[in-house]
Amino acid sequence: MTPVYLGIDLGGSNITAALITSSGKLLRLEKIKTHSHEGVRKTIARVVDLARLVQVAASVPSRQVKAVGIGVPGVISCKSGVVRFSPNLPGWKNVPLAAKIKAALKKPIVMDNDANVAAYGEKWMGAGKKYNHVVVYTLGTGVGGGVIVDSKLLHGYSDGAGELGHMTILPEGPRCNCGNRGCLEALVSGTAIAREGRRAVKEHPKSALARLCEGRADLVTSKLVFQAASAGDVTAKNIVAQTGRFLGIAVANIINLLNPEAVIIGGGVSKAGEDLLKHVRREAGRRSMDDLGKGVKIVAAKLEDRAGVFGAARLAMQNSHYQAEGGRKRRHE
Amino acid sequence: MTPVYLGIDLGGSNITAALITSSGKLLRLEKIKTHSHEGVRKTIARVVDLARLVQVAASVPSRQVKAVGIGVPGVISCKSGVVRFSPNLPGWKNVPLAAKIKAALKKPIVMDNDANVAAYGEKWMGAGKKYNHVVVYTLGTGVGGGVIVDSKLLHGYSDGAGELGHMTILPEGPRCNCGNRGCLEALVSGTAIAREGRRAVKEHPKSALARLCEGRADLVTSKLVFQAASAGDVTAKNIVAQTGRFLGIAVANIINLLNPEAVIIGGGVSKAGEDLLKHVRREAGRRSMDDLGKGVKIVAAKLEDRAGVFGAARLAMQNSHYQAEGGRKRRHE
Repeated sequence: MTPVYLGIDLGGSNITAALITSSGKLLRLEKIKTHSHEGVRKTIARVVDLARLVQVAASVPSRQVKAVGIGVPGVISCKSGVVRFSPNLPGWKNVPLAAKIKAALKKPIVMDNDANVAAYGEKWMGAGKKYNHVVVYTLGTGVGGGVIVDSKLLHGYSDGAGELGHMTILPEGPRCNCGNRGCLEALVSGTAIAREGRRAVKEHPKSALARLCEGRADLVTSKLVFQAASAGDVTAKNIVAQTGRFLGIAVANIINLLNPEAVIIGGGVSKAGEDLLKHVRREAGRRSMDDLGKGVKIVAAKLEDRAGVFGAARLAMQNSHYQAEGGRKRRHE
Repeated sequence: MTPVYLGIDLGGSNITAALITSSGKLLRLEKIKTHSHEGVRKTIARVVDLARLVQVAASVPSRQVKAVGIGVPGVISCKSGVVRFSPNLPGWKNVPLAAKIKAALKKPIVMDNDANVAAYGEKWMGAGKKYNHVVVYTLGTGVGGGVIVDSKLLHGYSDGAGELGHMTILPEGPRCNCGNRGCLEALVSGTAIAREGRRAVKEHPKSALARLCEGRADLVTSKLVFQAASAGDVTAKNIVAQTGRFLGIAVANIINLLNPEAVIIGGGVSKAGEDLLKHVRREAGRRSMDDLGKGVKIVAAKLEDRAGVFGAARLAMQNSHYQAEGGRKRRHE
């Protein structure tokens, strides 16, 4: 009976669970709404229900599932399996999530930050498959990511490493949600691109971008900016180029600091693909040290919203032997 | 007979060698000029001579010396022990330095970049002693450093990680030696501080700084800027504050990315001490994520120019068991 691992991605909007074999074959994936407003207890119950549902749906007997991995947004403590707090899960404060799921499912469990888990999934079965030193950016409403060194997730002292979105790129730049100015997130997130789009619509009312939103700046999204750019609108193309340059500065900094083999760009914004990536590559190439920057692959992510469950399953796989012995929780190192 | 380790710091100007016990006791330290213009072969002979000299001077028999560690400036390959090239050692290109020293001294040897080695020394016996996650900046003519994660040096894919001086801080800032603009090195190195000092002398010919150099801008050094600042000169104090702010931005980026316990500032520029560090702490505090920045110690280095030999000896100590078994070179991981 081939061992199977349960990967769970607990997000602010959706919970996803998947059964995955040790060779990376996805047997079944199920997704439900999180309904986090219902409170901590009910959300945990939904996670447990979904975990059971996916096993039933896949006709996989419980004894075949060797371990569970879960990715959770927010500030978490990997070793103790506690969610310290989470902007995306209102009301969660010092929740011993790993212990609760373990008690319900009776399986060894490993927990990590959702951005780390998604990065780890990309490294295992996505665009990072061939590499041991990988940095993954996730560009969505915000900017997050994960750092993989020698095939292991970088955690830092208190499991907080990898806040890729909060690198200062323009010291006097726009205000970021974190309170700082000029963070990468304030410059290249979907939110930031939409902000630049709105400004552009007001400044260039005859641009294709302005026509696309019928002159209503409040309707501009990052997606619309990319659409207008790929249709040739100069105003929108300038925004995309500027976004790529800012991201390229961040990537160069990461290359000079961490000497990775590959930098992977994922998340909704990355759907712009080569239109964006060509600018990232050019700026990163200009700013990284010659001997470090040359060989680095800067590529789009592949797994999209499945990266989380793949990463979670992989962590479960690699750490279940610790968990099974005497039940002590140890983090994946 | 207590085991002793030989730490060597090969620099562009000096070669330093020291015998150090496993508890970190320095038995003897010797230093000679590098005379790198004499060529690769002669420089290697000087390293070997110094290694023998320090043993004789300390009356330590060769059999007591268990292993040798060496720090080398430039781009090196740790695993193969080859110096790929070195701006500070003219003419060095693909020199198998580790093999040559091993053949001469008949000891297991481990080699690493000089900045890494110095960082490792600070972590072992200096300001980083109590911490496992440490980032060390060395501010001198240039800016370098090393990153220690879980008590191990971070090397990256091709042993190039830790180029702390080449993080872009001001995208349109002054040109850096690396060709990029606005690198940390172009803003906070001794060279950069002297450049700002020269500019200030021209702009403020009545400042204390201008008086200290008798109006001759070409005589301004970073040391003079710090002297004038601590004597209360406003012009010089502004330069120190600006230097601290730029370094603080870099430190905040490092905190958000790596989640270290301590950031250590060493090198000649760091002798400015609290005058500089208070600005670094303030800016880093403002720009780092709350849960990451709060507990981080930002402190001055302690070992000064001895950090290199301590780090080299420590690497030798931790890796000699690999080297001794069958002679295969493995890097410290």
